[in-house]
Amino acid sequence: EELRREGKIAPSTFLYDPNDYLKHVFTFSGTVLKMCFTSAFFWFLMVVNIVVSIIYYSVKFNHENFDGAFETGRFPYISNYIYNVLGGMVSFMLVFHASDCYARFFQQYGTVRAVEININNVLNLLRTHLPDDAFEGAGDLRTTVAKWVVAQMYLGFGWLPTYRENQVDEWAWERVNEYGLIGLYEKQHLMALPVGEYPITEITTSCTQLLFKFVRMGKLDGGIAGEIGAEISGIENNFLTLYATTEQPVPFAMYHYITFINNTWLLLCAYQWVFYSYYWGIIAFFLNALAFQGLRELSNNLAEPFGNDDTDIPVFDFVVKWHTRVDNFIHMPVRLGKELSAKHLDAAPTA
Amino acid sequence: EELRREGKIAPSTFLYDPNDYLKHVFTFSGTVLKMCFTSAFFWFLMVVNIVVSIIYYSVKFNHENFDGAFETGRFPYISNYIYNVLGGMVSFMLVFHASDCYARFFQQYGTVRAVEININNVLNLLRTHLPDDAFEGAGDLRTTVAKWVVAQMYLGFGWLPTYRENQVDEWAWERVNEYGLIGLYEKQHLMALPVGEYPITEITTSCTQLLFKFVRMGKLDGGIAGEIGAEISGIENNFLTLYATTEQPVPFAMYHYITFINNTWLLLCAYQWVFYSYYWGIIAFFLNALAFQGLRELSNNLAEPFGNDDTDIPVFDFVVKWHTRVDNFIHMPVRLGKELSAKHLDAAPTA
Amino acid sequence: EELRREGKIAPSTFLYDPNDYLKHVFTFSGTVLKMCFTSAFFWFLMVVNIVVSIIYYSVKFNHENFDGAFETGRFPYISNYIYNVLGGMVSFMLVFHASDCYARFFQQYGTVRAVEININNVLNLLRTHLPDDAFEGAGDLRTTVAKWVVAQMYLGFGWLPTYRENQVDEWAWERVNEYGLIGLYEKQHLMALPVGEYPITEITTSCTQLLFKFVRMGKLDGGIAGEIGAEISGIENNFLTLYATTEQPVPFAMYHYITFINNTWLLLCAYQWVFYSYYWGIIAFFLNALAFQGLRELSNNLAEPFGNDDTDIPVFDFVVKWHTRVDNFIHMPVRLGKELSAKHLDAAPTA
Amino acid sequence: EELRREGKIAPSTFLYDPNDYLKHVFTFSGTVLKMCFTSAFFWFLMVVNIVVSIIYYSVKFNHENFDGAFETGRFPYISNYIYNVLGGMVSFMLVFHASDCYARFFQQYGTVRAVEININNVLNLLRTHLPDDAFEGAGDLRTTVAKWVVAQMYLGFGWLPTYRENQVDEWAWERVNEYGLIGLYEKQHLMALPVGEYPITEITTSCTQLLFKFVRMGKLDGGIAGEIGAEISGIENNFLTLYATTEQPVPFAMYHYITFINNTWLLLCAYQWVFYSYYWGIIAFFLNALAFQGLRELSNNLAEPFGNDDTDIPVFDFVVKWHTRVDNFIHMPVRLGKELSAKHLDAAPTA
Amino acid sequence: EELRREGKIAPSTFLYDPNDYLKHVFTFSGTVLKMCFTSAFFWFLMVVNIVVSIIYYSVKFNHENFDGAFETGRFPYISNYIYNVLGGMVSFMLVFHASDCYARFFQQYGTVRAVEININNVLNLLRTHLPDDAFEGAGDLRTTVAKWVVAQMYLGFGWLPTYRENQVDEWAWERVNEYGLIGLYEKQHLMALPVGEYPITEITTSCTQLLFKFVRMGKLDGGIAGEIGAEISGIENNFLTLYATTEQPVPFAMYHYITFINNTWLLLCAYQWVFYSYYWGIIAFFLNALAFQGLRELSNNLAEPFGNDDTDIPVFDFVVKWHTRVDNFIHMPVRLGKELSAKHLDAAPTA
Repeated sequence: EELRREGKIAPSTFLYDPNDYLKHVFTFSGTVLKMCFTSAFFWFLMVVNIVVSIIYYSVKFNHENFDGAFETGRFPYISNYIYNVLGGMVSFMLVFHASDCYARFFQQYGTVRAVEININNVLNLLRTHLPDDAFEGAGDLRTTVAKWVVAQMYLGFGWLPTYRENQVDEWAWERVNEYGLIGLYEKQHLMALPVGEYPITEITTSCTQLLFKFVRMGKLDGGIAGEIGAEISGIENNFLTLYATTEQPVPFAMYHYITFINNTWLLLCAYQWVFYSYYWGIIAFFLNALAFQGLRELSNNLAEPFGNDDTDIPVFDFVVKWHTRVDNFIHMPVRLGKELSAKHLDAAPTA
Repeated sequence: EELRREGKIAPSTFLYDPNDYLKHVFTFSGTVLKMCFTSAFFWFLMVVNIVVSIIYYSVKFNHENFDGAFETGRFPYISNYIYNVLGGMVSFMLVFHASDCYARFFQQYGTVRAVEININNVLNLLRTHLPDDAFEGAGDLRTTVAKWVVAQMYLGFGWLPTYRENQVDEWAWERVNEYGLIGLYEKQHLMALPVGEYPITEITTSCTQLLFKFVRMGKLDGGIAGEIGAEISGIENNFLTLYATTEQPVPFAMYHYITFINNTWLLLCAYQWVFYSYYWGIIAFFLNALAFQGLRELSNNLAEPFGNDDTDIPVFDFVVKWHTRVDNFIHMPVRLGKELSAKHLDAAPTA
Repeated sequence: EELRREGKIAPSTFLYDPNDYLKHVFTFSGTVLKMCFTSAFFWFLMVVNIVVSIIYYSVKFNHENFDGAFETGRFPYISNYIYNVLGGMVSFMLVFHASDCYARFFQQYGTVRAVEININNVLNLLRTHLPDDAFEGAGDLRTTVAKWVVAQMYLGFGWLPTYRENQVDEWAWERVNEYGLIGLYEKQHLMALPVGEYPITEITTSCTQLLFKFVRMGKLDGGIAGEIGAEISGIENNFLTLYATTEQPVPFAMYHYITFINNTWLLLCAYQWVFYSYYWGIIAFFLNALAFQGLRELSNNLAEPFGNDDTDIPVFDFVVKWHTRVDNFIHMPVRLGKELSAKHLDAAPTA
Repeated sequence: EELRREGKIAPSTFLYDPNDYLKHVFTFSGTVLKMCFTSAFFWFLMVVNIVVSIIYYSVKFNHENFDGAFETGRFPYISNYIYNVLGGMVSFMLVFHASDCYARFFQQYGTVRAVEININNVLNLLRTHLPDDAFEGAGDLRTTVAKWVVAQMYLGFGWLPTYRENQVDEWAWERVNEYGLIGLYEKQHLMALPVGEYPITEITTSCTQLLFKFVRMGKLDGGIAGEIGAEISGIENNFLTLYATTEQPVPFAMYHYITFINNTWLLLCAYQWVFYSYYWGIIAFFLNALAFQGLRELSNNLAEPFGNDDTDIPVFDFVVKWHTRVDNFIHMPVRLGKELSAKHLDAAPTA
Repeated sequence: EELRREGKIAPSTFLYDPNDYLKHVFTFSGTVLKMCFTSAFFWFLMVVNIVVSIIYYSVKFNHENFDGAFETGRFPYISNYIYNVLGGMVSFMLVFHASDCYARFFQQYGTVRAVEININNVLNLLRTHLPDDAFEGAGDLRTTVAKWVVAQMYLGFGWLPTYRENQVDEWAWERVNEYGLIGLYEKQHLMALPVGEYPITEITTSCTQLLFKFVRMGKLDGGIAGEIGAEISGIENNFLTLYATTEQPVPFAMYHYITFINNTWLLLCAYQWVFYSYYWGIIAFFLNALAFQGLRELSNNLAEPFGNDDTDIPVFDFVVKWHTRVDNFIHMPVRLGKELSAKHLDAAPTA
């Protein structure tokens, strides 16, 4: 889609082969390598490490040092005895944080896919209980509710904070118009909603109001209308849960703490690790910076899976897929079990 | 709001850009830096570390020490072999505790946002099943229930222990009066409740009593009244869950244990780490104290998210937003689907 | 209450100020300091450490040792290279175990507070659906069910294993009599229950039997009776869950393992840590013993939160509070919404 | 019971006093000490460690070694720098695995106790809705369903894989016969079920079929029959969950991995740790082997809590207790609330 | 089955005896040993380690090195002080990741077994409410629904991404044909579904449409049809959950990060660990590579349990077993309780 080309939404999920790492070893997009190599702080750390190494080994001294028996000249130096505890703390903290962010990613993914289950249930209920011949107007009602549910998906995802900033919400409105999901009059009404309100809650209420009008007319059973309404409210509630999660990111104090001790620890190492192993120490520092900085960046990315990062959840691919599914099935008549119903049901005249 | 200016409630959630740390590097408010720099114990630790360093290096000796080959003169000294195990223990304990407090924060946040879902469901049910023309008095009933539900929000959050101490509960009553959410007579009744009881339970019962009076009159369907009542009880139960959590903080023995071993460990380091690295060791100790003390303070803050700390959940912003939402929507008539109902429903005369 | 004075139940939850540690630094009751200082094994460890220190430094040698260059004379000595792995293992194990016990504490606390939600729901249902004028006998039925539910609370918590050992169950019976919650005839029946059965299950069945008698008489709606019955069964099931948890403590093999490796590790350290740092090593050992022994004791206390420990959950405070709540509200007539019902309901004559 | 004497099922849960460790210090049964001391591999490790110690210290050399300054002669030797990482990995892995197995233990225990809640609910429903005077045959129906539910418990637990291997299922059948829980004709039918099918699913269906026959006869309310049926299906589903868990143990690859790296690590230590601390090192190795091997054995035991190990869940004690409960209560008439029903109900003639 | 011989699906779960490790010590299939020994990267690491060892010890030098006092000649060398932090980080990360993947494995297993519970419930509902004599056509309806549910299982599992790549979906279709589960006409319809749609959703809708046709004819109770429909939708939703999980593997950035730092760390060790312990260091490196590489491979396997790996879940064994169960029971008439129904029910003529 054009949105993807403009970098406003996430690319498709990259499916890899977990048993063959070598195939992916040079993959760059969507990896922590990319995250680190595009980070100014990462290169700042490397420059500090390399420059101090050069001054120490080439400008001041000319020899290698070995463990436990080196002299630092007049270079300020801190014993590793007293900063290694910090290193352990930082490692723990980062791994725990990564684990929490990973859980947050899958929790949000689960909510997205729960919407799919609601959609399928709505589709099933509409097709089962509102076939064209159920009552006069059943077909129209079925079509209208289905269209509104699809509109709810477009607008529901489009209203996620990151996408509103990207004007993806406008794209969502365009799609809704293009497919005629919502009439002109209804659209004006939704566009006129006060700032801060969601179109999806209004669509939910419109659906239940419409369904219960048919109930009051005696055309539709109240229990069935309730079931359909429950699934549509379920979609709304899933979206509200997503909004609630994205509106409360990792608390700032925690984000700041982790970033602060991680960056300070790396800066300390960039200086201190110069003294141990000639220029070879740069390799060790490089890997270390990659491991710590990379894990921090990875956690940030996992914690906020709606956006245009390489590892974000491609929600609009899902929306398009589910839209197609609704279009495919909503008018498909019953095909299975024809013989059986012919034998036992159609033979016997109703009443 | 004036409450915020008086520092009684939490500021708005600070939304940061996780991909650009540098922008936030000098942020102070709401970070562990502020928590540490306003802590007397933190400065006490730094003074101990610096004073002992001066005595050791400038008063008694005049040289640097290096790893594994230093003399302590007659200074009492403990080998790092036998206190590092303690350091590992403290790190573990703090990180696990932070992880538990982080989970507690999000659990309480989730309960707060679950109230929003209840509110939306009540609104949806009221608008769907109690339109003005449903029966005589439907409009009044809808308005009354909606007002009481809004009052329940103000009083429910206002009754949180921290806010009662801050007299935020009085502010909540003022709001309820100002917006006419509860009549004078009802207010007197609620104010007269025995100490220790919650106004919200009385409001819940009033709602269900009122709804079922209409049921007994044959005007309202029992199932619908039950659904609305269930959502209102849901709000009450969510508040009771919040009260239960805030009334049982991290057990005191655990809080005391973590604080005790953390502080003792830092005090030990403040003394011991003097011997390793000339005055440069002060840097290492400073970072270490910041990392350990900071994580402990951060955990405390996360564990109790209702208050006036910088990272607390801004619950009254939510209340005001949801109040506005109820006001906006409660009288909004059906707009969508008019054509459809015109065609199939309004044409056919009822009965 | 007198039970508290006799030390049979837990004191009130100690509410502390997490932002001001210094205020609590000398608190002793309910802390791990108290747990350790009243433990014989803790003092045994300290005696071993001090006695060996005296023998080594004052009887045999007269000098300090330093890291990596000490002689042990003919003292048996084990290199720290080969027991530090054990130290890491013990730290991990203790912190994980503490984390599990902490979760167990809050799970049990949550079940206790879930009973409050059931009580509130029963109260709400009784007041809504059984006002005095609902049918003949409604007031009596409401009162009886409410009394039995309160009796269920007293006897439910009184039957927890620890409290039965303490004769707290007898106190519960006294309360039930004193407040006339259960008639004489009913009490005899409950006292005659076979050993090993719970009075609360019998009370539950009595409630549902009574309610459904009214249903069969056509006075009460079956759905309403079912809802009330479900909440009462909910109370019973919450108690059964509590009994199930207390009847299966941390499996003995696990408890024994943790205690065994913790104690053995501390004993090893009590001997080994003598060699490193003159008499100053006693400080390090003391802190270490406090940290390890204290965490183990803390975990034990958290895992079994019903008893008379300082940090246990004060369940009988809750019972008394909920009893008062039921007494306060059960006969309170509807006060809110009078005008509204006057206008729309009372005007229209029923039928 | 005789099964226990034959060692086919688990002994009663050992209840210990967590505050008094010394009382349990010499307990052997049900502890990791017993698990280790009955393990051939444990003694093999000790023999390796002791034999190499003797060869090294008494046959080849005659002196003690100290840290960092020892010679190994021509003994192959690996620096601890390069195997300690492995030690950390093994510790982590074992503690995480123990934590997972502990959770698995309590999850299975929770499922077992959930059956108790189902039983109590069935009992409550039967007594409330099927008193002798409800309709003709109510007493017979109540008795039959109760008997079948008890039979379901015996056969449900007896069909657990470990117990089928032990022929405990035959004992279960004997009990079912002895107490006349299932008629002869029914038993033949259940015995004739195809291999791989469970008697409990057939009993469930028999119960629901019977109940709904009464429904179709107009004697029993469909909703009540549905509730009872749901609890009986609940019992079946809890058993299916237990079977599912026991049929999928810790995946073999994981079990093998943990056992393999644990055993290899211990074997490496048995050899390497000889060089550090004269014969005293044997103590350190002994404790280390106990800690690692013991935790692994403990995890295995916790992961499979149905069997005849000392720490297994004594499910048949529960079955017998619940059987007694059903026998005690099923025919117990209403005793509570007699006065109340006398006043309001029995006075008024039905209809 | 022939699929297993062709290596397209997983072998049966390997059931081991956790108390007897020695029996399994030489097991190779399904262990991490097999995973490592078939990995090119593993052998590459070993070759690097061995070749560098030979060059260092045999080509350049001829002596052993000891801890803390060795010379590296002109060999580039990095102090272990500065790469051990990385080692700790990698260990943590791998163990946490393994723990997450283990949880993912059991979550997916739980979903598979939840399908069994749905099947049993459908079977129970069909047999209870649709006996042959319930109404005309009941037997046909029962058979048809049962067949479709079985077809749903075959096609549901066959549509899992890994199995579609393996053409296992074609095998599933063959089975469905062979057993006549779905008629020719229906099959054509399902085969004609648009790409990307699932046959199982169409089968679900066919079931509910058919059932509600009978409801509209007045032959079947709407509540019963709803219950059966809910279980069938439950099966569909469980499958959708499985598809959702398999379509979102461990995010690629995370997989890549773990693989990258693990492999880089091992490569660094392969070089560095040469310097410490003569040729004996190869043993240490070998075990280390096995532990790290093995855990990574194990995690990958656990995370994706549907495939043809040795430890994957043998879903088609379950399908065949459940198919057999349905076949065995669907037509089995009531056998239990005949006497009771004879006495109370069959005696009394219906109506």
